[in-house]
Amino acid sequence: MPPSFRGTHQAGIVDPAPRSLLFLALNLVGGTDRLAVDRVLADWSRAIEPATRGIPDAPELVGLDTTGLTVTVGVGPDLPGKIGLAAPKELAPIPALPGDRLQPAFCGGDLAAQICSNDPLVSLQTAQTLTRLSQGVLTTRWRLTGFTQPGPATPRNAFGFKDGTGNPRTTTDVDNAVWIPDGPWRHGTFLVVRRIPMDVQRFAALPTSRQEAVIGSRRDTGAPLTGHDEFDEINLFAKHPDGTYVLPVDAHSRRAHARFDGGRQMLRRGFTYSSGNDETGLLFLAFMKDPALFTRVQARLAEQDALNDFVQHTGSAVFLMLPGTGDNTVLRLPG
Amino acid sequence: MPPSFRGTHQAGIVDPAPRSLLFLALNLVGGTDRLAVDRVLADWSRAIEPATRGIPDAPELVGLDTTGLTVTVGVGPDLPGKIGLAAPKELAPIPALPGDRLQPAFCGGDLAAQICSNDPLVSLQTAQTLTRLSQGVLTTRWRLTGFTQPGPATPRNAFGFKDGTGNPRTTTDVDNAVWIPDGPWRHGTFLVVRRIPMDVQRFAALPTSRQEAVIGSRRDTGAPLTGHDEFDEINLFAKHPDGTYVLPVDAHSRRAHARFDGGRQMLRRGFTYSSGNDETGLLFLAFMKDPALFTRVQARLAEQDALNDFVQHTGSAVFLMLPGTGDNTVLRLPG
Repeated sequence: MPPSFRGTHQAGIVDPAPRSLLFLALNLVGGTDRLAVDRVLADWSRAIEPATRGIPDAPELVGLDTTGLTVTVGVGPDLPGKIGLAAPKELAPIPALPGDRLQPAFCGGDLAAQICSNDPLVSLQTAQTLTRLSQGVLTTRWRLTGFTQPGPATPRNAFGFKDGTGNPRTTTDVDNAVWIPDGPWRHGTFLVVRRIPMDVQRFAALPTSRQEAVIGSRRDTGAPLTGHDEFDEINLFAKHPDGTYVLPVDAHSRRAHARFDGGRQMLRRGFTYSSGNDETGLLFLAFMKDPALFTRVQARLAEQDALNDFVQHTGSAVFLMLPGTGDNTVLRLPG
Repeated sequence: MPPSFRGTHQAGIVDPAPRSLLFLALNLVGGTDRLAVDRVLADWSRAIEPATRGIPDAPELVGLDTTGLTVTVGVGPDLPGKIGLAAPKELAPIPALPGDRLQPAFCGGDLAAQICSNDPLVSLQTAQTLTRLSQGVLTTRWRLTGFTQPGPATPRNAFGFKDGTGNPRTTTDVDNAVWIPDGPWRHGTFLVVRRIPMDVQRFAALPTSRQEAVIGSRRDTGAPLTGHDEFDEINLFAKHPDGTYVLPVDAHSRRAHARFDGGRQMLRRGFTYSSGNDETGLLFLAFMKDPALFTRVQARLAEQDALNDFVQHTGSAVFLMLPGTGDNTVLRLPG
């Protein structure tokens, strides 16, 4: 694979997450054509791609350390129809799901840029550059910022649990789960974004053993309740002497298990966000070959999941992420 | 000085800023007495002080790296009257100033906790712990989060300029500027917090030379317009051959210069914040012996400062920060 705009099929998706995320969802200005979008993507590439290789020459980035900067760009379900772009039929809005509490202010978008870096100011200034260069073509629809612990250890979420242990880890597993294998969108992928406020106070008030029963893993090590080490395989069938399952029937890790989808996996990257005086939550980002997988998993969780008492879904979007570009090459819409 | 709750007269104020700030302003629940406040401070100390020494045993902090964590606690102008606490007369609200656009949602507070750390999740979980332990005594009034580049280099703000170059740097200068020298509040200090949205798009659109004339320093090096290196002394009197000042009469660094206050300095720590879809700004924190210094400087800036076209003040608060405690010692109200 070529090195890319540190984007798709590349660092922005498969590297251990950097400290900071800024997610930018944009609307296309009415009457804009495909040429104008490709022009913006080219301008974005010329301004930012060098910074992802350690040459921060965009004016906003002067003097900042851009180590770890990635920009990963995707198109939303409505864009192809607006500009005559051929896209896989899987690019369609996530259907309404039981338990959704979606707010339009955190949903959808024609185009998206996932900006990751190790310095939130670098992410912010990069967003600034992208916004500046897309004036007249794109407007900001929503913007969310989040943070996580830098890898390679699995980061913790605001409930204090390791989050992401079940991700595909070998290159083969990632290839099978994430990348579109052929056609003009080869090496692209689908991204599902969900904004999930968490009731941290109420969860924190539970005894640790109850927290662990809700999640399905140990709080300290991240090990499944049926194992000893973080990456031990989950045993869905293990029972206590009294006949009850070691991993409770409504434990989150059971209900979300890939076995219920024929082993199909998604690559999740979670970022914590904090908003206003008391809202804390998760920006759930998941990359996969087909967003229908997310819909099936989330429908299963909505039906039964001990975690439902402590989380809500208030934002939702899906994007088809563009295959990356090489060094000194500009990003453009495929096909 | 004793090592403290990593608090006042200590790391939370004079160390190079860590990556992340969470500032918590709290209201006293009606009918609460001084004993209850001291009980909360003791509970806070017992829960968090060990984490500031690398022993993160509060349940919310398990598994997190608390390196760099500091918690610095202060009391607002209304608290002494409410609980019969003797405080210096300098503890009074910052008066209304020309140009203020204050929003009550970002002003005031009976008690404050400045939480700094290198991992925003550590700051968030610490806030969670403090909130949990003060239930029934304190409620959240406002909460703001910000970030900066870790020191020791002077960090940049969202305009891309180094911010903090003019701070006192020697121990003697810091002692003279910051710490209350005697009495029960000895080694305490005053903190002024201002929430300052910045018009980054419009500032970024200026040519660099114009930006530098507004700020009064070079964008790349941070050097004053009258010097070559970042820490060269500002020459207020240098003129061009045509008789105009090298440092323009309305440059921010001229208008804010300590010479206009008989050399009196404050210790500033700025954090960038990002809010909603398009607000970016500065959380301005300044520590000083007497908050009247801030009022004088800000009144002078409100009168004339080229920066006024690009910033607003929407939040304001003042707190008297408690002297720190030693290891394994609990924080309490002085006097």
